[in-house]
Order: sequence, then structure tokens, then C-alpha cells
Amino acid sequence: MAASGEDSLIVRYFGPLATDPGAFDLSDDAAILKSSADDLVVTTDAIVEGVHFLPGDPPDSIARKALRVNLSDLAAKGAEPAGFLLTLALRAADDQWLAPFARALGEDAVSFRCPLLGGDTVSTPGPLMISVTAFGRTLPGRMVRRSGAEVGDRIVVTGTIGDATLGLDILKGGAAATALDAAACDTLVQRYRVPQPRCALAMAVRDHASAAMDVSDGLAGDLAKLCAVSGLSATIDVGAIPLSPGARSMVEAGAAGIDRLLTGGDDYEILCTVPENRFEPFAAAARLAGIPVTQIGLAVAGTGLPRFRNRRGDDILLKALSYSHF
Amino acid sequence: MAASGEDSLIVRYFGPLATDPGAFDLSDDAAILKSSADDLVVTTDAIVEGVHFLPGDPPDSIARKALRVNLSDLAAKGAEPAGFLLTLALRAADDQWLAPFARALGEDAVSFRCPLLGGDTVSTPGPLMISVTAFGRTLPGRMVRRSGAEVGDRIVVTGTIGDATLGLDILKGGAAATALDAAACDTLVQRYRVPQPRCALAMAVRDHASAAMDVSDGLAGDLAKLCAVSGLSATIDVGAIPLSPGARSMVEAGAAGIDRLLTGGDDYEILCTVPENRFEPFAAAARLAGIPVTQIGLAVAGTGLPRFRNRRGDDILLKALSYSHF
Repeated sequence: MAASGEDSLIVRYFGPLATDPGAFDLSDDAAILKSSADDLVVTTDAIVEGVHFLPGDPPDSIARKALRVNLSDLAAKGAEPAGFLLTLALRAADDQWLAPFARALGEDAVSFRCPLLGGDTVSTPGPLMISVTAFGRTLPGRMVRRSGAEVGDRIVVTGTIGDATLGLDILKGGAAATALDAAACDTLVQRYRVPQPRCALAMAVRDHASAAMDVSDGLAGDLAKLCAVSGLSATIDVGAIPLSPGARSMVEAGAAGIDRLLTGGDDYEILCTVPENRFEPFAAAARLAGIPVTQIGLAVAGTGLPRFRNRRGDDILLKALSYSHF
Repeated sequence: MAASGEDSLIVRYFGPLATDPGAFDLSDDAAILKSSADDLVVTTDAIVEGVHFLPGDPPDSIARKALRVNLSDLAAKGAEPAGFLLTLALRAADDQWLAPFARALGEDAVSFRCPLLGGDTVSTPGPLMISVTAFGRTLPGRMVRRSGAEVGDRIVVTGTIGDATLGLDILKGGAAATALDAAACDTLVQRYRVPQPRCALAMAVRDHASAAMDVSDGLAGDLAKLCAVSGLSATIDVGAIPLSPGARSMVEAGAAGIDRLLTGGDDYEILCTVPENRFEPFAAAARLAGIPVTQIGLAVAGTGLPRFRNRRGDDILLKALSYSHF
């Protein structure tokens, strides 16, 4: 008798991704992460159809998003990828969907040097759900926390902010879809569907940042969390927040409010605080890694919410700081 | 402004479970597992409403099952629990459900010395899903594989087999519900809802078993997997398979076939192979741990499926070896 449907599915599609000896070719109940002098950083993020991706999204982009949202966490913690576990809840074992999903996941596993170690595949009558647990390694005690920011530190973000929420808006047929040309729309949609985890910046974050996290639920809310656990506040120069050409056109045309960009989710950029005297080496390391970094404000004393100031020095009032599931 | 709904929910219900310093009180994006001389064993199993548990199951039993199916894997691998990650996909943040869920999960985390390290909570329009990744530690290179069985090894199971599938049958109003008295029904239902991971046997498995796995998809199918990766076959004496009083009554009354008990899922007992000269110390360690172990057959040369023989020496034919999701 052949192996059960679940087992043959796993071996066929995901066996080739399990290149680490600790994965035992997915033939066992558990995987091994070998002892080493490093701390192991573990993080887990799940994506759900209709919540984190759309029912019509291509399987390859869903696969990449599932892994990359976790790689983004590792990068923000200053950790190098070591491997991941995949839990897949499927309505049916559909080859047309699984083949491109597994292929793209495998490509990302290679690109980011993060092999599949194991996982679980279950059936569900509900929406697709992909849960990934990612492992990274850091020197002992060197994981970059959310809580290390100090008053006077520069507040820095990578890349551009707000693109993904506009991309989602386009997929839903919102204002952005009519305000931009097709190429600009495509760029924003890609930013929603396929995050670019800043793994190449992980060592610079580890070496120079006092605190860091990835921006996944909106810059305003995520910054508020970082400030709260660091016991301080922040002032942000809204004009300094890096926007992509598409996002900038939208704002200038009045088709998207800046508050929307600051509170939308799915950026998967790194938000970090860098002490004044570390900023130059940090920026140099970022240039070397080819990742744009922009100072957007300063950490200040206080316990209030971060303040977002426009060009005239007025505070922008944000209705909701970030995406919340509940 | 208060933290977002998701964050306050996590801190309120799950903060108390995060007793390990590497969990950072759930205030960060990732957790740390400190380096040690041990190998880290990682396993992940998800349970889905309507698939692995029933919509009406009590939240406390769902919590225990979600964690324990993973602890069962660690025990079978000879690993001691070190912590777990929890991913929760919920339709709504319902206090009436979350409070008993978190309380029971916390009790199990303490009992099994397996603290919560982190996780993710997402909303879903679909069925509840709980995905757990559990970490265990073993001496380097000492994880017990599925693949180590040798011809002549004794085949052993813990506890009793087939109770959980009968418990599920009772919950669905099947034959078992009318064939047994209320107390016997309750016992079987509990076996379905709340597995008893054999963590107390982990060290004995590590020290004496040549191969091991937990029985989660049915004894027949799981034994076939163990035999296949070990490159051998097995003969099983069906009369020796340990049955609970309830299951035995059902079989004797003709209300359940033995094939049903051998192929139903959710046993969460340990199936292992023990070399002849290790059996006495293994059995002694099991007695000390208070866990019943029973020899049910022998590993034999060959590549065919394991043979299940009845009292007359005839092979029992099994239609399907195990539960398959697809």
C-alpha cells in the first residue's frame, strides 16, 4: 500500500526543501537543531486567506509571504536564518496549487538560506492557513530587543512605508486603482503580496541598533509598542518618512491620506533606534548591504504616544494606530 | 490609547504562561532558546475544529489536546520538554472561551514543565485552529528516530489502543454510545479529548528503544511507517494489543471491530522497538514511571506491510491503515 495521501503529498512537494540533515528528509516526527554556541531565536507568524492574503492571490506569492513575514522578524532581531517549520491547513490536496507553492517556497528557502526542517499538513473546511515557525541564530545575549531604545536615539526605518496597504487597496478596487497607472499599481500590489525581508541588514541591526522590530501592523502602532516597552516616547517628522513614488503620487493627488500609510499593515520593513554615535557605521553598513535606511525622528523622554509632526510642526492625529485582528 | 485588541488579549491571557526568561513576557517579536550542550528537538502539530476536535468540545480540553499532541511527539523522541509556541486562529476574541482555554494551557505548561515562549494570534472567518510548535532537549545525537528498528526487536506500545476513536464515535452518537454505560463512555470520550502524553517514559525510550514514534494516526498505519523507514516488517499478535475495559467490551459485544481500533487515530501512545537485551531494563524503567508497556509483536525481516495475526494465526486484513487528511 502506498503511504497515506498526506505523507506522499509532503514528501513529493516538500521533501526537496528539507536539505538540512536535521530535517531527516521529513521522514520523522521531529527535527533536530544541533547545539551551538549561538542563541536560537524563534518566531512564528501565520497568514490566513481573506485576512493576510486574498483568495485569488497566486500560490507562489502566498508561499513567499508566509516565509518572509517570519524572516522579517529574524532580520529585525539581528538573527541569521537557520531553518523553518511549515504548517499548512488546506481544503484539498490540489496539485495545481501545491506545485507552484512548494516551488516558490523552495526558491526562497535557498535564497534566504533557511531550509525546511519539518511541519504538519492538515485538512480544514475553512480558509487556507499557513503558519511558519522560523529559527535564527545570534551570538549569545545579542538578540536585538524592542526594549533597548534610549532618549536621543535616532529612529530609523528601512525601505518605504505604506506601499502594501495601498497595494491591498488596489486589489480591492479602491481609490489607488484609478489614481495610478498600471505599472505603479503592479509595484504596490507586489509590495503587498511579496514582502522583502531585510535579512541583509541583520548584522548591522545587531551591531548598531539599540532596539528594533519589524513593521507589520502599521508604523504608528509598531513604533508605539517599541516606545512603550523602552519606556520613552518619540517625535516623528512625517515629511521624512520614506515613500515610494507610487505612494507619494497618491498622497500628493489627495487619493490617500498620510495617516493611512502610517497605520496600514504589511510593510515588513525594519524599524529601529540607533544611538547618535552608531548612526554613521550603521548607515555605512546599510549602504554596503544595499538597503535604504532613513532617519524619521528621535526618541524622546516621556510616556505619551509618539507624535507625528507635519511640515508646519503640527501633530497629525491618528484615529487608530494599527491593524488589530480583534 | 490602549494596546490593540490582539496585544491586550495576548498579555492578559497568555502572559502568565510565559514564565521562561527567553519569552520576554511576550513583549517582543521573538523568543530565545539559550544555547546548551543538548540538541534541540522541534516538532509541530496543529488541531482544527471539526477535524481534530469537535465544535462543542470544552475549551480546556482543546487547549490540553493542542499542547499534548506535541508533547507526545517529544516523549516518543526521548526528549524533555523545553517550551512551546502557540498560534491561535480565532473567529472572535471571546472571553468565555479564552479564559478556560488559557487556564488549562497554563496548568499543562506547569505540569509538563513546558513554558509558553511566544506565538501569534490571528483572526479567521473559518474554524478554530490551534498550532503548537514544541521544543525539547536531548543529549547530542540521541533523539530516537523512527528508523532504528532491527530485526528481532520487540514491538511495544504504551497504555491502551483504540480508545480515542471509540470516544469520537460516542461524541458522534455512534454504536459505542449505546453499547456502554455512561461512565465507560465518559472514559473513552476523555481519551479522545485529552491525550496523556507519555513524557514520563521519555528517558526510558531514549536509553533503551531502537526506534520510536507516537501513535497518532492509527497503530497499523504508524507501525507501517516505522517499519518502512527502518527497512523491515513486523508481525503483531492482535490478542496481545492492550485494550481498555471499555474497548474490550465493545469488541466482545461485536459493537466495534478490532480493525477499527487498530486504524483509528488519536491514541497518542508511544510505539517503540526495544532490542531483546534491553527489554528488561526498559520494562523496569516503565514500571518506575508508572506507565504500562506491552509487547505486541516482533520486528521481522522483509519489506511487506506489518501482519496482524489473530488467535488462530490468521492475518487480519485492514482496509485502510490509518487516518489520512487527503
